[in-house]
Amino acid sequence: MEDRARPMMRAVRLHGIRDVRLEQLPRPVPGPGQVLLRVACVGICGSDVHYYLEGGIGSQVIADPLILGHEFTARVEAPGPGAGSLRSGQLVAVDPAISCGTCEQCQEGHPNLCPDVRFCGCPPVDGALAEYVLMPAQNLFPLPKAIGAAEGALLEPLGVAIHAVDLAHIKPGQTVAVLGAGPIGLMIAAVARAAGAAEVYVTEPLADRRQFALSYVADSVFDPGDDNVAAWILDLTRGRGVDVAIEAAGAAETPQQCADVVRYGGQVVVAGIPRDDAMTMKASVLRRKGLTIKLVRRMKHTYPRAIRMVASGMVDIAPLARPVFPLEQVVEAIEAASAYRAGVLRAVVRVSD
Amino acid sequence: MEDRARPMMRAVRLHGIRDVRLEQLPRPVPGPGQVLLRVACVGICGSDVHYYLEGGIGSQVIADPLILGHEFTARVEAPGPGAGSLRSGQLVAVDPAISCGTCEQCQEGHPNLCPDVRFCGCPPVDGALAEYVLMPAQNLFPLPKAIGAAEGALLEPLGVAIHAVDLAHIKPGQTVAVLGAGPIGLMIAAVARAAGAAEVYVTEPLADRRQFALSYVADSVFDPGDDNVAAWILDLTRGRGVDVAIEAAGAAETPQQCADVVRYGGQVVVAGIPRDDAMTMKASVLRRKGLTIKLVRRMKHTYPRAIRMVASGMVDIAPLARPVFPLEQVVEAIEAASAYRAGVLRAVVRVSD
Amino acid sequence: MEDRARPMMRAVRLHGIRDVRLEQLPRPVPGPGQVLLRVACVGICGSDVHYYLEGGIGSQVIADPLILGHEFTARVEAPGPGAGSLRSGQLVAVDPAISCGTCEQCQEGHPNLCPDVRFCGCPPVDGALAEYVLMPAQNLFPLPKAIGAAEGALLEPLGVAIHAVDLAHIKPGQTVAVLGAGPIGLMIAAVARAAGAAEVYVTEPLADRRQFALSYVADSVFDPGDDNVAAWILDLTRGRGVDVAIEAAGAAETPQQCADVVRYGGQVVVAGIPRDDAMTMKASVLRRKGLTIKLVRRMKHTYPRAIRMVASGMVDIAPLARPVFPLEQVVEAIEAASAYRAGVLRAVVRVSD
Amino acid sequence: MEDRARPMMRAVRLHGIRDVRLEQLPRPVPGPGQVLLRVACVGICGSDVHYYLEGGIGSQVIADPLILGHEFTARVEAPGPGAGSLRSGQLVAVDPAISCGTCEQCQEGHPNLCPDVRFCGCPPVDGALAEYVLMPAQNLFPLPKAIGAAEGALLEPLGVAIHAVDLAHIKPGQTVAVLGAGPIGLMIAAVARAAGAAEVYVTEPLADRRQFALSYVADSVFDPGDDNVAAWILDLTRGRGVDVAIEAAGAAETPQQCADVVRYGGQVVVAGIPRDDAMTMKASVLRRKGLTIKLVRRMKHTYPRAIRMVASGMVDIAPLARPVFPLEQVVEAIEAASAYRAGVLRAVVRVSD
Repeated sequence: MEDRARPMMRAVRLHGIRDVRLEQLPRPVPGPGQVLLRVACVGICGSDVHYYLEGGIGSQVIADPLILGHEFTARVEAPGPGAGSLRSGQLVAVDPAISCGTCEQCQEGHPNLCPDVRFCGCPPVDGALAEYVLMPAQNLFPLPKAIGAAEGALLEPLGVAIHAVDLAHIKPGQTVAVLGAGPIGLMIAAVARAAGAAEVYVTEPLADRRQFALSYVADSVFDPGDDNVAAWILDLTRGRGVDVAIEAAGAAETPQQCADVVRYGGQVVVAGIPRDDAMTMKASVLRRKGLTIKLVRRMKHTYPRAIRMVASGMVDIAPLARPVFPLEQVVEAIEAASAYRAGVLRAVVRVSD
Repeated sequence: MEDRARPMMRAVRLHGIRDVRLEQLPRPVPGPGQVLLRVACVGICGSDVHYYLEGGIGSQVIADPLILGHEFTARVEAPGPGAGSLRSGQLVAVDPAISCGTCEQCQEGHPNLCPDVRFCGCPPVDGALAEYVLMPAQNLFPLPKAIGAAEGALLEPLGVAIHAVDLAHIKPGQTVAVLGAGPIGLMIAAVARAAGAAEVYVTEPLADRRQFALSYVADSVFDPGDDNVAAWILDLTRGRGVDVAIEAAGAAETPQQCADVVRYGGQVVVAGIPRDDAMTMKASVLRRKGLTIKLVRRMKHTYPRAIRMVASGMVDIAPLARPVFPLEQVVEAIEAASAYRAGVLRAVVRVSD
Repeated sequence: MEDRARPMMRAVRLHGIRDVRLEQLPRPVPGPGQVLLRVACVGICGSDVHYYLEGGIGSQVIADPLILGHEFTARVEAPGPGAGSLRSGQLVAVDPAISCGTCEQCQEGHPNLCPDVRFCGCPPVDGALAEYVLMPAQNLFPLPKAIGAAEGALLEPLGVAIHAVDLAHIKPGQTVAVLGAGPIGLMIAAVARAAGAAEVYVTEPLADRRQFALSYVADSVFDPGDDNVAAWILDLTRGRGVDVAIEAAGAAETPQQCADVVRYGGQVVVAGIPRDDAMTMKASVLRRKGLTIKLVRRMKHTYPRAIRMVASGMVDIAPLARPVFPLEQVVEAIEAASAYRAGVLRAVVRVSD
Repeated sequence: MEDRARPMMRAVRLHGIRDVRLEQLPRPVPGPGQVLLRVACVGICGSDVHYYLEGGIGSQVIADPLILGHEFTARVEAPGPGAGSLRSGQLVAVDPAISCGTCEQCQEGHPNLCPDVRFCGCPPVDGALAEYVLMPAQNLFPLPKAIGAAEGALLEPLGVAIHAVDLAHIKPGQTVAVLGAGPIGLMIAAVARAAGAAEVYVTEPLADRRQFALSYVADSVFDPGDDNVAAWILDLTRGRGVDVAIEAAGAAETPQQCADVVRYGGQVVVAGIPRDDAMTMKASVLRRKGLTIKLVRRMKHTYPRAIRMVASGMVDIAPLARPVFPLEQVVEAIEAASAYRAGVLRAVVRVSD
């Protein structure tokens, strides 16, 4: 009965493999500490694609219909009780991870390693592909005017890129290789540049992404199918190798390529998510070079820095937010993100203006 | 007798306080592992000024006439036996520090902490204000065409700036305050920017240096004589303070100002050399904020990175090399460096083309 | 009216300088997330002494009567709603710091740097010198049988010692100097030993503390009034200096002594709280040795480790908990802690068994 | 002709697979900076066994007859010109690695990563299984009386264990798992304990080594063939996992076991050398736990610390030097090291007293 009077909203739910429906659902009502948000833009991430194409990711399986989407901007609609003082209409970036705050990892400052994290758009927590969504006030980061809603939706993956670069401890003037020029790889390359990389080399099998990388940030690009990646890097660096190699392809061979192209004592960071989960590397190479392999798990404490970097122009993520689809074309957006297509970087759904 | 036949050279020697003479001295002859260099440009450092004005720095006193100068570029004239394969005429930047290579600090990778270092232009080792100088081959760094002789002479102080920024562990998107806009402070600000600082705030009592800093790299500048530095920074950062504060003024009050303007848990690096040696800070502030105070001792392993940063345009040091004097005006150059004068940043002596 | 029926308890309140009264106060009632504790033992810290002798510490002044005490063990009496499942009667160590959990420092894992921390026994928060006290459930750490109530009260200062040693990054086999053999200095020496120090040298002006230090943990002790501390350490280390120097005296000269006795590139940690707040060091020494000065601000995440270290016998803190006074002699306990007296290390008040 | 007069010595050379001969060879003559050493004791390392059983290790193949042995003590016989002032007869531990000193890694303090290292007992450099050997003076570390010749020979593998523990950054009071209880694993466990591990858990398939580990250093041991290693550790740690896991078995499955037993955000160090070179781990586990995998490449700067640790009794390596064979039984010693046999830990050959 109440629901009749209750305001409704449009929302995109995944009911099963490739079964996405634009539906009418009750608009949520904010509880204590929560803020009702009117969603602006939502980026379609690789994990959304996994749910769409396979109905789950590893042990996380879609049992009930789920609203997808976790890379998003929104406007403050109505704060619940005790949810702070954000003014109505304020555009915010949203951290989709609600960590527990009490486990050892959270206490020690690593909420990205919280085993009890609740995450927007991951079962059983509904995501952002809807007109309205609820989030805790502390997950909201007001955006300055210099940052628009579409690029703002990419602050979430930019945070992952920042965390990957943080792990690499780049010193100004060092040389960096990024293996893979998908959206995350491109952002890693851009952040590495902003963090002081004097030379950024990018490998990528797709020709138009190589071309984009070259115009966007790379000093040199390479098709790993052509030839030997290590030979290319050793040639560019006069046999020394790069100071830092960051894997952003999720391929089976790219972790070892990082070890092959990095200098003795260099840094290797693995940001990509391999399809078959086994990561195989040559112990002899790792040992001889005294390497350390760091795995990237989401991000921590990156929003304020990400916002400063984009607002100040240090990193330009607007060109990566393309194409942009209206909510009605959400299926097209997910399909565009699913199969590689020239010109698609991060597909974004504009839910409202 | 031999000296009649021996080739001579012009050299600038300090004989006592303010007693600098342009003299004819025998041209040195390279021994094993040494390279005879034809000096190109020499920057006048604050330590040269100390020797000039006071006849010494602390316990290092000019006993015998000394050739000053340690920030320099040169062209390879003639390698001695076993001194590598640098081609004649190659322009090189020169690391003026000859560390022992065998002490614990050298072995552990910290040649800047070698207690037995021999240093160009510090007694009893003659420096570079001469037409020719000898250096070990391993102290020479070939310069690409993009770097000229005058700006190349500033790669040495740029190395100090890089080391200061290395110690600060700046993360991309962080905020940085630099206290002091002399040549080192300006380079620190530029390197901090290149290392990912999203905002760089600079304090400096001299108006024209503030103006230069603003056009060169700073987002905002401040006259510490005007008002309260901490209030200015807290206002700019909404009460949070900066992530990193780097002292480059050598004043009595600037170390504590760093502690006052930095955020809780932030980084404080002290690069300046205070006149009276006593560094006094409030333990309560340091403790409450959990600060770590790092002192900058010269540099280590910075030349390749410095060259890459300048060659790639990440950092532009050419505007700091001014004015440039011919060798005949070396006294004017040292005087310009001695007393602050508008328009003088790093005075450079051009010894040869 | 209610108060008539409400259970009462004995509590020690400070009403002004040297005005401590054992009073009857209402027993507190636990709210949500809080646990009512029956206090077992309370150590008398130097900060308690400051309040007692001077009526305050810096800007923190006793305005209203305050229950002192923050180093304590207690037994679980009654958990409030949602305060977890600790069984009644369980002996617990108590972290007296209630950090805000939401500031940047707390989020990043540094609750010891929380500017909004509420702290037991610091105005306006009542402390533990009472029969009952309330604490949040998450501040309680159950003790194994191997740890008694009196030594358990010293887990709090032991945490400070652990944090100091954490900051020093001791490697196994290194050499360590600890300047000051009060309770904190002794614990630092013991933790340094447990952390791998092969040699531990301790300076202390008081003869019986030197003697205790020697029997407790030190390889060698020294009276800093006798002679030159640096000469002593350089003699012990064949001119090299120690790898790590930790200040635990709070004297004016001890920070500089740390710089004098530490090797080039060594670690200096300042744990003591100087009386007059100004910390003065020679910049030339710090710079030449490339030192980093770290200030200790309380502790973070140390309770589980502290408990393991004591329970396993790695560190023996029981001998430091002396003498032990009954609650009725609380004034004697504070007086014993106030003026140095042979045989007193950490005075402890036993409130209940 | 000269050789007739030249003093001879006995030496053990490997001529091919399992072809070891005790021969008469000319005694070497020290050149500048070299010291002639009379060899005391030589430990038989796993790499010696590889040469013995397979004629090589990977690309390093025995072409000419080679004197094996690199873990050794010796007595100073005669210093060459400029080889320092060690007194004749002094017992020394010997660092068998002669790094180049000029490459980037050496300069930065990582001689263990020198690609041009020359290494005693690795082709083409003869090793220590001879009555006399030459070494640079800087590779010699005088031993105090507390350390005997046989245990001193184990300072070399102890250095590897120290380096492994250094990489693990153990904090005092943490928990550590060591996978594998061969000589290196046992030393790692002992050093981890000395470095502050409150609990040390060891896995090992061989029963008598498990028993030894338990009496030597471990709190608990486990047969990885029995059951699930992760379940055992999670049970011991109440589901949390250990802070640090160190692989010392060289088995195919042990790297992943490290990832399985370590806590979220913990440290994984791989010290073992796997037989087939491929190191395979589950990316999902590494990523979810935010792990960093560090590979151990020999050691750096560990001799002074190793000597202090053994001399002070922090680590007792004497029980690991067993059995001890005379030079005449060198084949028996290598055979003992080749095939696992109860009671054999590190077989040592005593060449002279």
